[in-house]
Amino acid sequence: MTLNYLSFMNLSLKRRIYLDNNATTKPRSSALEGVKKALKSWGNPSSTHQNASQSKALLWSARENLSSFLNCHPLEIIFTSGASESNNHAIKALFQNLETQSHRQELILSAVEHPSVLTTGDFLKKQGKTVHYIPVSRKGFLDEDFLEKHLSDKTLLVSIMKANNETGILFPIEKWIQKAHEKGALFHSDMVQALGKEKIDLKKLGIDLASFSGHKFYSLQGCGLLYCKKGIHLDQFIHGGSQERKRRAGTENLVGITAFGEVAKEGEFIITESKRLRFLRNHMEKTLLSSLDNIEVIGQEAPRLSNTSCLLIKGIPAAESLMMNLDLKGISISVGSACHSGKLESNTVLTSMGLTTKESLNCIRISLGLENTKEEIDYFTKTILSSIQYLRNLD
Amino acid sequence: MTLNYLSFMNLSLKRRIYLDNNATTKPRSSALEGVKKALKSWGNPSSTHQNASQSKALLWSARENLSSFLNCHPLEIIFTSGASESNNHAIKALFQNLETQSHRQELILSAVEHPSVLTTGDFLKKQGKTVHYIPVSRKGFLDEDFLEKHLSDKTLLVSIMKANNETGILFPIEKWIQKAHEKGALFHSDMVQALGKEKIDLKKLGIDLASFSGHKFYSLQGCGLLYCKKGIHLDQFIHGGSQERKRRAGTENLVGITAFGEVAKEGEFIITESKRLRFLRNHMEKTLLSSLDNIEVIGQEAPRLSNTSCLLIKGIPAAESLMMNLDLKGISISVGSACHSGKLESNTVLTSMGLTTKESLNCIRISLGLENTKEEIDYFTKTILSSIQYLRNLD
Repeated sequence: MTLNYLSFMNLSLKRRIYLDNNATTKPRSSALEGVKKALKSWGNPSSTHQNASQSKALLWSARENLSSFLNCHPLEIIFTSGASESNNHAIKALFQNLETQSHRQELILSAVEHPSVLTTGDFLKKQGKTVHYIPVSRKGFLDEDFLEKHLSDKTLLVSIMKANNETGILFPIEKWIQKAHEKGALFHSDMVQALGKEKIDLKKLGIDLASFSGHKFYSLQGCGLLYCKKGIHLDQFIHGGSQERKRRAGTENLVGITAFGEVAKEGEFIITESKRLRFLRNHMEKTLLSSLDNIEVIGQEAPRLSNTSCLLIKGIPAAESLMMNLDLKGISISVGSACHSGKLESNTVLTSMGLTTKESLNCIRISLGLENTKEEIDYFTKTILSSIQYLRNLD
Repeated sequence: MTLNYLSFMNLSLKRRIYLDNNATTKPRSSALEGVKKALKSWGNPSSTHQNASQSKALLWSARENLSSFLNCHPLEIIFTSGASESNNHAIKALFQNLETQSHRQELILSAVEHPSVLTTGDFLKKQGKTVHYIPVSRKGFLDEDFLEKHLSDKTLLVSIMKANNETGILFPIEKWIQKAHEKGALFHSDMVQALGKEKIDLKKLGIDLASFSGHKFYSLQGCGLLYCKKGIHLDQFIHGGSQERKRRAGTENLVGITAFGEVAKEGEFIITESKRLRFLRNHMEKTLLSSLDNIEVIGQEAPRLSNTSCLLIKGIPAAESLMMNLDLKGISISVGSACHSGKLESNTVLTSMGLTTKESLNCIRISLGLENTKEEIDYFTKTILSSIQYLRNLD
């Protein structure tokens, strides 16, 4: 046991096994190249002298790389400080526009949205808007009857994420974009977790607004984008200067944007790699399910992202203890989303899906990334099995 | 002339003379060191495993460096994506809080605020709030009688910048913070341009809210902060996760924040250097005024930042032509703020101060930075003199 422990520690010193890629990803070398380029071109892109011309060119190049990867027009991209801002912008700017909101005052969200969408909903509720939360079943399926019933000519916006950050469950937004449009409503999606894992074709989707983040896509924290379909009038959320064609004020985060654009150039490769992750994830889940009782993969029967596994492990003290045990052994996983971490609170995504508070506190999230190898996942599987057995014996 | 032109071009190839530091500054080497540190610690600071601990430590260290330089408590700092966001946050979050706004619905701004403050005022006006704009005279003085008259128990917030970005004019906020408090109103200041040029002691000032930007302080674009005095309840502007003690959602821009914090460690040195800039700026202005007729320094009699010179040059086609002429000669200056550039529009700051549209279109802004040498300023002075004479002969 002592020997085993030492060999664990040794591995941890060599290289940690990072399985929390839904919280953030390690910037790729292309992102770092982007950082270098942008640091050389530090002029303000809004200036008109030669110190600005290279910055302007970098900004445009990133816009082109991203629009080409997402299949949209470069000018349909609004750079933001991240997906939380994008989500706030999309939803609030629509509801705060006095012209568009005249006879449409209702917002429809899934009950399992990211906090930046859910709390924006709460904010609008306080301002007198009506918000409907579409239930999601324990198995991970949207209550489509509820959505059908509440979608009406009072609906201004439907916002449903493409992929859930906690469970990896994918939602059938394609179908509902069309249905929303039939009712004259707009459709927004938080597509953060889908980026780089699922093929995204914004033009084909026909979606009106979509949020993306750089740091969930092997780029930097603090930079994201909001796709806004041509023809959709979107007010500024951050008011001020005329950057981003008067849709988002503030000097652009050129370092973050350039890095984001450089990674987008490798987007197809990243998506292809995610198929490898699906194989590793499935193998890991199969091994755990066949080796242990009282373990459940949340959303196993629903379509899921390739990299995410949300596991309910009964018979252990709160999942926090398992996470800490693995952490000491050089493995990073998550309990609850990163936004909620640091305190033992029930995970609202999971309780919304009908898990009890106790069950939600016994869930862990494993999210794979491009750097993970088969050896790492095999080692992780072996290690978590022994950790669970150890904790179950304690309980 | 050809020889002269070639020698200009030669200089331009060697090193440009950058005199647009109020638009953005070149990141210092300490900022680049910060970038390197942060890129090594790419974990999400909200995670709870070991990949996050170094990121958390960097975040805290930057908070401490900045709070020590600004003399406030580390937890009074809210990191944002820049000063435009900080300004929007400070003003909107106060007015959107239903509890605070009950009997106080009025906002008082100076007429020469940054667009991110002025357009936020426009936004609130559309929402039914009352906004008073304090006139500023051509000489650069606030109409204090107007302010005195409009400051009442209906005022929720007074927002006056410490230093104007176009003219460098300083406003006596110290006195008005106190007067606002006597009436039970809060005080916010856009202090972006003062950072690194004037000594800032937030505790001594007693101000409630203040906005700062990294990229006007030799750090990166896309990162700023909002100071929020202990005891002031400020809602989220970007709603979502519990980052920044639930005051600003979204994964932190660790690269930008770390760079900002590293530069703050050199803050005292930067302020000391700005005294050297004052000498260079004054010498340049004196030479131009004594060599040319029909030239005016805007705000010359008012207290001004050490680095900024706003010059009204009559008898030339629009200042744009002077800027372009200098640009070809390897010198970067600005006409209007960077946010307005790229189109020949009158500068609202200057027209608010009583300049005619034609006069405002004949103004240039020269803003010095730490890297500027005496040789550069002497060369610039000589060059602009010959450019003005050339353009006056054309007109």
